[in-house]
Amino acid sequence: MAATTEVEKNNLEEEAEQVVNPWEVSSKGKIDYDKLIDRFGCQKLDDALISRIERLTSRTPHVFLRRRVFFAHRDFAEILDAYERGDKFYLYTGRGPSSEALHLGHLIPFMFTKYLQDVFKVPLVIQLTDDEKFFWKNLTVEECRRLARENAKDIIACGFDISKTFIFSDFNYVGGSFYKNMCEVATRVTYNQAVGIFGFAGEDHIGKVSFPPVQAVPSFPSSFPHLFSGKENLRCLIPCAIDQDPYFRMTRDVAPRMGFNKPALIESIFFPALQGETGKMSASDPNSAIYVTDSAKDIKNKVNKHAFSGGQDSIEKHRQLGANLEVDIPIKYLSFFLEDDAELEHIKKEYGEGRMLTGEVKQRLVQVLTEVVERHRRARASVTEEMVDAFMAVRPLPHMFD
Amino acid sequence: MAATTEVEKNNLEEEAEQVVNPWEVSSKGKIDYDKLIDRFGCQKLDDALISRIERLTSRTPHVFLRRRVFFAHRDFAEILDAYERGDKFYLYTGRGPSSEALHLGHLIPFMFTKYLQDVFKVPLVIQLTDDEKFFWKNLTVEECRRLARENAKDIIACGFDISKTFIFSDFNYVGGSFYKNMCEVATRVTYNQAVGIFGFAGEDHIGKVSFPPVQAVPSFPSSFPHLFSGKENLRCLIPCAIDQDPYFRMTRDVAPRMGFNKPALIESIFFPALQGETGKMSASDPNSAIYVTDSAKDIKNKVNKHAFSGGQDSIEKHRQLGANLEVDIPIKYLSFFLEDDAELEHIKKEYGEGRMLTGEVKQRLVQVLTEVVERHRRARASVTEEMVDAFMAVRPLPHMFD
Repeated sequence: MAATTEVEKNNLEEEAEQVVNPWEVSSKGKIDYDKLIDRFGCQKLDDALISRIERLTSRTPHVFLRRRVFFAHRDFAEILDAYERGDKFYLYTGRGPSSEALHLGHLIPFMFTKYLQDVFKVPLVIQLTDDEKFFWKNLTVEECRRLARENAKDIIACGFDISKTFIFSDFNYVGGSFYKNMCEVATRVTYNQAVGIFGFAGEDHIGKVSFPPVQAVPSFPSSFPHLFSGKENLRCLIPCAIDQDPYFRMTRDVAPRMGFNKPALIESIFFPALQGETGKMSASDPNSAIYVTDSAKDIKNKVNKHAFSGGQDSIEKHRQLGANLEVDIPIKYLSFFLEDDAELEHIKKEYGEGRMLTGEVKQRLVQVLTEVVERHRRARASVTEEMVDAFMAVRPLPHMFD
Repeated sequence: MAATTEVEKNNLEEEAEQVVNPWEVSSKGKIDYDKLIDRFGCQKLDDALISRIERLTSRTPHVFLRRRVFFAHRDFAEILDAYERGDKFYLYTGRGPSSEALHLGHLIPFMFTKYLQDVFKVPLVIQLTDDEKFFWKNLTVEECRRLARENAKDIIACGFDISKTFIFSDFNYVGGSFYKNMCEVATRVTYNQAVGIFGFAGEDHIGKVSFPPVQAVPSFPSSFPHLFSGKENLRCLIPCAIDQDPYFRMTRDVAPRMGFNKPALIESIFFPALQGETGKMSASDPNSAIYVTDSAKDIKNKVNKHAFSGGQDSIEKHRQLGANLEVDIPIKYLSFFLEDDAELEHIKKEYGEGRMLTGEVKQRLVQVLTEVVERHRRARASVTEEMVDAFMAVRPLPHMFD
């Protein structure tokens, strides 16, 4: 097998102070995203690219672009080049269904993907990796399948267009052309390479070793013959958090050797824990995150009690020194969810210069988050079992490019 | 994960003079099958067990039992115990479709499985591991799928009962309950264990590492919901050549941890090459084997030119010393295919004591093989594409135990 430059260049020696892979995100201090871009070998999403999106879509770029929540990419410019020439693409994103209640961090890729679907008018496949969670978490197959279906409701609640969206779970969908592509990928990745990319150990079970091709192949149109038959050259754009990059480095490495386009990526930072910005929120610590099932009261309590503040210890000191915005979680959360750029700038200025107090900022954050969560809860309550069946039906999407 | 005694007990240190695994069978001298039984930890098929089969089925045991072509087993007695109590079982065998033309060695498990199906009146699943051949041979997916279908015709030609037989190829059938069981198996085998059982190396691609669960799960009734729904306790008996034992050692190790019965096995020796008994016949050397596509003339030429003889160099010496039956391939082949016990004994006596010459024995062998091959050719010619579709249709088999 030929040497695989992209994989080998990125062959990770995880640095002790910062671990980012699909199963662990941890850091001694703040995560250094620039270092991550360097180490992973992806590109920074710059102003020029964002202006170009604005021009091509005739819409203000999504708040997650303006605030650089999505901050890195691979070949996104090529997707835009093709789009400008009149070539469409498709979107692929996914979720590993390991918990019932999603937190706000889980919604970020879906909110952004919905925006991309809306402005580019393109089809979308959403993979629920129930097999992955079976491999990595101590759950039964049945529980993983149930969670996949429950999570599908939260995903549907984000507002995806059913005429352009196919949601599938691996336990339901693996087989046929999808399995054929899994095998094609698997023959092009050695065990040693998989260890280099994913850090598998000899004591790990072989389910883990066999999983990466499952997450790789939705990047190839031929994995979805009911959607893309005859469109084998359709490009794929993957919006995801940057911890998923290893899967797609591997995928991009094998794609040309399978005669396929490399998938493009647009990658986000992590939504930080309430306690501070050293990793992702954790589903296992309920006080580290705002859940989409939290009540207004829960949100208020969590923000007031647990959101790490960059404000000073005393009012006097705060008035004098101002807040340290770099470590302040309320400001960070507002930058994800407060859409009004002017208001955010105003709050940052007033708070940073000590005129606004932590309590006031937190109060505004509680309002903003409560609104996001309430909106989601209402939308999810209206998702029926029939809608889940409809989104997950293996069916052609004749209007997917309209 | 708990220690896995059955796997570890058999953790193979391949001995240099004798290599037997699913991908290689080679030996410096004759294969020592007793040693193989010891090393693999299976049991010898003894006279008592064969008498018991005769009593339970009220039929003369198959020639492959009488001549100990099937010579080893795992838990076959338990299958017979259950059968005697009125519990049925199902048969599972398979083939890796890597070549168009089958040789006689390939037919042996199918001929024997047909006998088992006939006398026990039980359902049968036949797995065509086109994915395995894609992983191990330098073939395209499409070529492997085509070969699977061609080989299915040869298998059907062996006379299986369509009302009791489901033939499937992995590229067509992997998915659903079958994939779920693959994942269940995969979580119970570590990479280190897989290396111990199958000898994988770090440079091997991950397709190889992910394959063993695919061959394991047809041992579990729940992999075939269209056949065995509600019959999760049905026992499975696997007739196969002994080189497949590593897959099923692994399967038997994980089965109880999945709440399933261990599959039972009945295992054959290898059909030797014309050149002598040091391994299996090789599809890559056409003169090492009799193919089911060979003409009467081909068979005559191959036997006369290439079949290794235990006869003496000169007629005088032969009349004096007799033939060495231990190394004589014509005698070996006759012991597989000449059904008349008395005639075989007669030939062995006359030839062994020098009264019969190699040429005479070869002439009889040519007759016997030509008959087997002609019968197969006629049967295969009558297999239509529609019959292949019918055998491979995912369908219930309501009369499978009648």
